[in-house]
Amino acid sequence: MNTFGNIFKLTSFGESHGAAIGGVIDGCPAGIDVDMDFIQSELNRRRPGQSKITTPRKEDDKVEFLSGIFEGKTTGTSIGFVIWNANQHSSDYDNMKDLFRPSHADYTYQQKYGIRDHRGGGRSSARETIARCVGGALAKLALKQLGIDITAYTSQVGHIRLEKLYPAYDLSKIEDTPVRCPDIEVANRMIELIQEVKSKGDTIGGVITCVIKGTPVGLGEPVFGKLHAALGSAMLGINAVKGFEYGDGFDVDHRGSEVNDVFFNKGGHIGTHSNHSGGIQGGISNGQDIYFRVAFKPVATVLMEQETVDKEGNDTHLKARGRHDACVLPRAVPIVEAMAAMTILDYYLLNKAR
Amino acid sequence: MNTFGNIFKLTSFGESHGAAIGGVIDGCPAGIDVDMDFIQSELNRRRPGQSKITTPRKEDDKVEFLSGIFEGKTTGTSIGFVIWNANQHSSDYDNMKDLFRPSHADYTYQQKYGIRDHRGGGRSSARETIARCVGGALAKLALKQLGIDITAYTSQVGHIRLEKLYPAYDLSKIEDTPVRCPDIEVANRMIELIQEVKSKGDTIGGVITCVIKGTPVGLGEPVFGKLHAALGSAMLGINAVKGFEYGDGFDVDHRGSEVNDVFFNKGGHIGTHSNHSGGIQGGISNGQDIYFRVAFKPVATVLMEQETVDKEGNDTHLKARGRHDACVLPRAVPIVEAMAAMTILDYYLLNKAR
Amino acid sequence: MNTFGNIFKLTSFGESHGAAIGGVIDGCPAGIDVDMDFIQSELNRRRPGQSKITTPRKEDDKVEFLSGIFEGKTTGTSIGFVIWNANQHSSDYDNMKDLFRPSHADYTYQQKYGIRDHRGGGRSSARETIARCVGGALAKLALKQLGIDITAYTSQVGHIRLEKLYPAYDLSKIEDTPVRCPDIEVANRMIELIQEVKSKGDTIGGVITCVIKGTPVGLGEPVFGKLHAALGSAMLGINAVKGFEYGDGFDVDHRGSEVNDVFFNKGGHIGTHSNHSGGIQGGISNGQDIYFRVAFKPVATVLMEQETVDKEGNDTHLKARGRHDACVLPRAVPIVEAMAAMTILDYYLLNKAR
Amino acid sequence: MNTFGNIFKLTSFGESHGAAIGGVIDGCPAGIDVDMDFIQSELNRRRPGQSKITTPRKEDDKVEFLSGIFEGKTTGTSIGFVIWNANQHSSDYDNMKDLFRPSHADYTYQQKYGIRDHRGGGRSSARETIARCVGGALAKLALKQLGIDITAYTSQVGHIRLEKLYPAYDLSKIEDTPVRCPDIEVANRMIELIQEVKSKGDTIGGVITCVIKGTPVGLGEPVFGKLHAALGSAMLGINAVKGFEYGDGFDVDHRGSEVNDVFFNKGGHIGTHSNHSGGIQGGISNGQDIYFRVAFKPVATVLMEQETVDKEGNDTHLKARGRHDACVLPRAVPIVEAMAAMTILDYYLLNKAR
Repeated sequence: MNTFGNIFKLTSFGESHGAAIGGVIDGCPAGIDVDMDFIQSELNRRRPGQSKITTPRKEDDKVEFLSGIFEGKTTGTSIGFVIWNANQHSSDYDNMKDLFRPSHADYTYQQKYGIRDHRGGGRSSARETIARCVGGALAKLALKQLGIDITAYTSQVGHIRLEKLYPAYDLSKIEDTPVRCPDIEVANRMIELIQEVKSKGDTIGGVITCVIKGTPVGLGEPVFGKLHAALGSAMLGINAVKGFEYGDGFDVDHRGSEVNDVFFNKGGHIGTHSNHSGGIQGGISNGQDIYFRVAFKPVATVLMEQETVDKEGNDTHLKARGRHDACVLPRAVPIVEAMAAMTILDYYLLNKAR
Repeated sequence: MNTFGNIFKLTSFGESHGAAIGGVIDGCPAGIDVDMDFIQSELNRRRPGQSKITTPRKEDDKVEFLSGIFEGKTTGTSIGFVIWNANQHSSDYDNMKDLFRPSHADYTYQQKYGIRDHRGGGRSSARETIARCVGGALAKLALKQLGIDITAYTSQVGHIRLEKLYPAYDLSKIEDTPVRCPDIEVANRMIELIQEVKSKGDTIGGVITCVIKGTPVGLGEPVFGKLHAALGSAMLGINAVKGFEYGDGFDVDHRGSEVNDVFFNKGGHIGTHSNHSGGIQGGISNGQDIYFRVAFKPVATVLMEQETVDKEGNDTHLKARGRHDACVLPRAVPIVEAMAAMTILDYYLLNKAR
Repeated sequence: MNTFGNIFKLTSFGESHGAAIGGVIDGCPAGIDVDMDFIQSELNRRRPGQSKITTPRKEDDKVEFLSGIFEGKTTGTSIGFVIWNANQHSSDYDNMKDLFRPSHADYTYQQKYGIRDHRGGGRSSARETIARCVGGALAKLALKQLGIDITAYTSQVGHIRLEKLYPAYDLSKIEDTPVRCPDIEVANRMIELIQEVKSKGDTIGGVITCVIKGTPVGLGEPVFGKLHAALGSAMLGINAVKGFEYGDGFDVDHRGSEVNDVFFNKGGHIGTHSNHSGGIQGGISNGQDIYFRVAFKPVATVLMEQETVDKEGNDTHLKARGRHDACVLPRAVPIVEAMAAMTILDYYLLNKAR
Repeated sequence: MNTFGNIFKLTSFGESHGAAIGGVIDGCPAGIDVDMDFIQSELNRRRPGQSKITTPRKEDDKVEFLSGIFEGKTTGTSIGFVIWNANQHSSDYDNMKDLFRPSHADYTYQQKYGIRDHRGGGRSSARETIARCVGGALAKLALKQLGIDITAYTSQVGHIRLEKLYPAYDLSKIEDTPVRCPDIEVANRMIELIQEVKSKGDTIGGVITCVIKGTPVGLGEPVFGKLHAALGSAMLGINAVKGFEYGDGFDVDHRGSEVNDVFFNKGGHIGTHSNHSGGIQGGISNGQDIYFRVAFKPVATVLMEQETVDKEGNDTHLKARGRHDACVLPRAVPIVEAMAAMTILDYYLLNKAR
């Protein structure tokens, strides 16, 4: 259950404060040019300490590939990789050893396995998502050759939100602000809110929107392998995600006659006038843009004192020390893209096996 | 990709107007008492023609088990079953043969496979969900022995919605109204709305809420097999579903300090004061109630004339004949329960393999 | 675990004396012409009562397809099918109810599941292989379009064996004798032996050889998905099979310098002078003929009285009644072909997903 | 396809002359004491250069665990590990770059992927089996706690073979000779033969026998997940393996009445007088010893000059340089044990999920 995908598969390993995070990518097509700078730049987008609104924790996060690449190209064999955990301040966590932090996975891991690495959340730490960014970066390189492009952005932080659908925004501006929102004015208000929240040692939730352009018609498998079910499962596998919707999603107060996407002959091929379907019909891509939204709760690590219990069930208090991430959304943007990229490539390959 | 599950697995088959719908259930524990009346009653809840607000199409839908049951008990071997399609008015669909109905899967199936059974949507028809209700009913029987109980209800139709969380309602009243909403007054307004929509030949969307009680601590697998990702994938695999959220879901405008679920010693075992997490932390059940919401778009079959294109790409019109289902939510309630039941049982069994 | 394959998948169900045997074929390419006569003829080759040397038990074994086929062609959706068990003399087995027949699966099923359908071996009966013949027949139809041809034959019964490798025989003669051995003279001696064994109520083992011609270069996945590992697993999944070897197999008393297959330029493409590798190198097909051998033990049902124990562990005796199959090899020939066909098609499709 | 197993899973990576060999072990039960000395000793048994009869190539092969282990115990999360390739004499292989070595995987990899790491066989090198020994060692530690014990030995080299079944030998003596054969006199003759073969730069094949004691009744899944099919697939996945047989295997010239394993009451539990079944009936373990035999061809690397073709299809010659392994069987013994251990543990865990 540490493996994602059917054909293009990522198996990941690593705890927050263990020796390393890493994984194996299996089923990657042979002959992909491995642009190391691009891959590293994707990891850097996820890295803490990029700006004043993210956690100042320093993580170096250099990826090292161990196999499956020869003379700069993928060979079709499995690709092993590691990212060393340079900075293991494990004594920082001694006070967490016997406590269950509220809304973290400490309690559930302890109960399931009878043992856990308590340092920084261990396996349940979002640090594991580095491995996903490596897999996603490689998938993006493969998708680029197919003309498929994936872009995510922060569309809501707390009560501050973009009111319009993605076509209203210039998606090339996403990286222009640390919050990764394409509307600069809204971005600034988001940043202001995050700083206020941060100053209190608190955290705030939000929403990321993702758009996939260039998907060919036909990706997705009927019944239990629907493309949007795969995307949804991928997104719900990201730490702190609480919801997924595509196309009209939870905006259900409409009549069928209003929201049916009418087909028309668009200069020789078949298009639709509207795209309430979000680019997927009957679980299969129809060639229109795929778009979806992902809800993130405020992360559980706050700097205020909180009540909780210890392993023996005694009521107690805890106070996290030092650094925290008031809003993970900016750093989650590349993770959403990575999971989407792996899913689309996986389904592209699956669709070839017909 | 017609298989659902890891250990408890349902593989389904069948087109809307083919000979039969059916499937194989693999991995069902041995020794479960197969209460045939209960299983049939679950199918009956899904069946069209139950009330004035659903489609009047008559479907008999008697399940016939072909294997895996001996002297009234499951034997641990694979369970084959069929539900015959008694009523195959296939000539009704001749006018659909070369058309792509808007927001249906006609176009995507045709493009993916180069061939499709056009009668009533073929494989993409929601009639396939009968097989899921069979699998779900069996899973419910197994879960009952474990003290796990699953209940879904219609919480929104168009703009009419229940405003409160599930603990505010008496869930035993769900089957008292044809719309399967536990608040009779709200239910009546929903029914009124559906009848109005129906009279215009139109359709309307909504939301189903599902609650799972009695889940033990520890179900769910780290990283890519999170329990809520499995539930989300299961729900997004239901026809017409556009979104999934659990716990606080898209209600993200909160601070971590507000929504963290504080642990306390609840008479010897560990409980939480609140349940914003929706019963799942780090992807693993924590023993609290699991609850989630599922968004359904208005179904695509409307009785008004609509524009579209035919297989050759010519612009044309289509008008569906006869009967339609103005709001599928009441009939989708048992399907949501069925998918949830199969998911929970599957993860229960998976959790034993440690 | 009632599912075979990765992309082209067969999920089977059914007990010897239950209502039906059947299954679901998933992942079959769309557009295959479903030659019903051919499929039925493959089932007939497996059927008991074909000749004086097989069991006289009458089984009608007509396959009925329930989905996935439209206007004579596969549609790419899952294909459900059933073969009804016409003749359920279940009272014949009342004396077996509490006994464990030697070298049958009665004891192991009872211990594993705590319950079993004792009639005719229940799920462990070789009658289940009908479903494989259906899957195999469909796979053969798909492979034929690809120029891949699969032929199996009986190469040994007891001590009587073909001494040479398959190129020494005219494989078109296999169906000329009831024992399915291409050398008529050897076939007659095999038949004589089987009749002698049969007259004593006993059974005899043997070997089936299988040859696959026309496989393109490149099928097979490195490391754990080697083509011969998949073929071996498929064969070892057939009832009564005790061994599998390909190429030189257990004939290990050779030097590398003798048995290396030297490459040469064979009129523009690369061939090998010899084929000790059996058409597979490093787990991947090299374009040469694939050939392998499958060992079958004598089947466990003999008509002599045998000692055994009952469910309570009391020593007792049992005597099977009526009919038995003195040598299953002739009837197993189509099953070997069916499993090989499904494996090769599955790996052909898997190889497309690169 | 670089993943082995269903619940206990090994995903491996690494080329012969890349940076490292490694893998991820997923599904390992929590709480296993990780005896690092034992694990390293298992790797040492596989290492080249142990004795005069194996290749003198020096490989250090120290395993480094990166995750999934905390304070000396497994935590239930995925276990990443690497073994660095210290000694990468890649220029040694420059003359192999454009050649296809006979009976190696050079040609098939090149055709399948269009690219390959030619150095020392790349991914197809048996050096990959180090990862399996790590997985196997961990599985052995888990099985030990369950009282399950796995032992393999060399039973044939060329024409020299042990004539009797495993109970005739003292299996505690296997490690006493470098050839890993429990009969010292036969072992010495094997060693003599290997040295003779080695002196000529040639190689020789053989057979390894494996015995599993202490398996509980009930492991194995009906129909396509038979325990012996899983063991066979595991063994056929080892480099140079050409055949697998269990119980009586290819020794088929027997009557059913002779080889049926008669049940009897063995002091309160049910045993069998004989064990022709090899401990598995109907695909499920019956509590008797499991035993099987694995055939290895002579390895393809010989030091004589051989004919072959190059990538352009030109006929040419090649002569391997330096070191070779005249008989891999002694070093394959721990690999057979490792694959058996992972298979049995996987099926043990699978059997819990009922």
